[in-house]
Amino acid sequence: MQKTILECILFSCGENTITLKATDIALSIKTEMNAQIEKQGDAAIPARLLYEIINRFPESDVTFSSVGENSVEISCLNSKVVLQQMDAAEFPVFPELQDEEQIKIQQNVLRAMINQTLFAAAVNEDKPILTGLLFDIKKDSLTVVALDGYRMAVRKQPAISDIDKECVIPARTLREVSRIIDDTDENIKVSISGNMALFEVNHTQIFTRLLEGEYIKYRNLLPADCATSVKVETGMLKDSLERASILAREGNNNVVKFEIKEKNLEITSNSEIGNIDEQIPVLTEGKDLKIAFNAKYVLDVLKNVEESEVLMQFNTGVSPCVVKQENSDAYDYLILPVQLREE
Amino acid sequence: MQKTILECILFSCGENTITLKATDIALSIKTEMNAQIEKQGDAAIPARLLYEIINRFPESDVTFSSVGENSVEISCLNSKVVLQQMDAAEFPVFPELQDEEQIKIQQNVLRAMINQTLFAAAVNEDKPILTGLLFDIKKDSLTVVALDGYRMAVRKQPAISDIDKECVIPARTLREVSRIIDDTDENIKVSISGNMALFEVNHTQIFTRLLEGEYIKYRNLLPADCATSVKVETGMLKDSLERASILAREGNNNVVKFEIKEKNLEITSNSEIGNIDEQIPVLTEGKDLKIAFNAKYVLDVLKNVEESEVLMQFNTGVSPCVVKQENSDAYDYLILPVQLREE
Repeated sequence: MQKTILECILFSCGENTITLKATDIALSIKTEMNAQIEKQGDAAIPARLLYEIINRFPESDVTFSSVGENSVEISCLNSKVVLQQMDAAEFPVFPELQDEEQIKIQQNVLRAMINQTLFAAAVNEDKPILTGLLFDIKKDSLTVVALDGYRMAVRKQPAISDIDKECVIPARTLREVSRIIDDTDENIKVSISGNMALFEVNHTQIFTRLLEGEYIKYRNLLPADCATSVKVETGMLKDSLERASILAREGNNNVVKFEIKEKNLEITSNSEIGNIDEQIPVLTEGKDLKIAFNAKYVLDVLKNVEESEVLMQFNTGVSPCVVKQENSDAYDYLILPVQLREE
Repeated sequence: MQKTILECILFSCGENTITLKATDIALSIKTEMNAQIEKQGDAAIPARLLYEIINRFPESDVTFSSVGENSVEISCLNSKVVLQQMDAAEFPVFPELQDEEQIKIQQNVLRAMINQTLFAAAVNEDKPILTGLLFDIKKDSLTVVALDGYRMAVRKQPAISDIDKECVIPARTLREVSRIIDDTDENIKVSISGNMALFEVNHTQIFTRLLEGEYIKYRNLLPADCATSVKVETGMLKDSLERASILAREGNNNVVKFEIKEKNLEITSNSEIGNIDEQIPVLTEGKDLKIAFNAKYVLDVLKNVEESEVLMQFNTGVSPCVVKQENSDAYDYLILPVQLREE
């Protein structure tokens, strides 16, 4: 039951402000707010308990007071809670960035970039570098990339920076960043220095270690041209694939087959419990084609696309498919097909 | 992966109607709807799969057709699903009630009665009879009772019937009934016969076995008078107890202490991680009192009370407390206190 210092939030009370700090060493978050301070000092308070209690307090001012050496009293109207505090001096030293290089980008844009790539990052730790997202920063653009060996998401955006470098940021950090940033077009500042990155927004700073190692040369993976192109309504394709998944996931590894013929995309799945056939009207260009996918990898992108129509580009039944917008290179999503034994 | 017949819904297609039936033997549900029938017959279709697929179909007509002996094709616009069907003849014979006695009650009233008692029924099967709710039916009233050895909920309502009997209906059945009935003041009909009960509403019939055995004489458990009475705002007491629970549940078995003094209810909880003190302004009558409870048992009733104020009635620190409305016997909730070692 004894808490460790890393389970605590460090409260540092200055003249007119409180600074809150939390860290698990790899990821550290710091935020600042105005407060009426009667006596300056530090306190390390168990984070989860404190969060639950503050969440349940009525809408009113909260007062924090030290009680003896080891406790802190937190009161709000007729409620008074006393929690053990830990030794604030034990709290880890917070990282600082020196000689950093910066890029600025709109908060809502960065959030969209994270959300449209994060789901494609590797979940298991076989190749730790793939559990992060590549930030490929040029003088005039930011490209965010995630891939897990079965699919890859590439999201590009114009941006102004004084940097020309690549770094890999843990997906976990970016999940927190996406939660903290607002849905506004005000800027967030991203700084890189050594093996650290820092996100700064709204009085909050998020420090993160970078992942070490070399990321895959993602540009080479995107095919240069295509033999078959299909334009399809995003919602219609998503609904069909969700139905097909219900059958495909039972005893069929979630495999769905696509058959493209002039003006028609047929999606089928066979399993021992039954089969499904979906006919979707589409615009096609190029050769007819048969190809199969894990339905999840296609659904993932359709859930994160903002456009009402997507373009699917194919070469052969055994080469990757690219999902993208028409006339835009802002978002490319590549999916490896599943090899079919029959046919 | 092979389904059993009990995992299926039996479709019986008559002249202009389909009847759907599902059963797990103890609980059986049957519902009827209009349909355009081209050929009459029966089909047993896997329930969960069918439910998921129908749920994902677009808003449009659905067509069911037999395909050979063992399959059924279900289509909707451009979607076509073929599922294995099982032998409809294997489907269990559905129960029928004979010489039943009936009670009628408004749907929204029965739902409130179920929701205000169900949570107090026993969850574990040590005493199977307590996993059901007692329906105590008189000529002019229906009383629903649930108890688990730590607390008891008793909800009474005027109602007209030709019955004077007690029966115990499984909590599981009543959870389904509560889901199926609408939020209207139209009647639902409840019939009892032998060891069966039947709920009838909106073209739907729910058959259930009754639990066998003798239920506890609940009337004797409610204390006749009280030495201390407290009137308190429901929301304020609930908020205080939810905060106190955060501390009480960590190493303190969720125990909270109540101390009642003139015009004040103090709730406290001590555990190794900290302590909490809540002061609630109340109206009191009678003696001062100290008593302790498992916070969950008090919270459960506060979440299900419709009134903005409740009355808590006490006798001593070791005898049950009754939570109720002022000037009403519609809803009584009895909680056993926790014996404190200290004091």
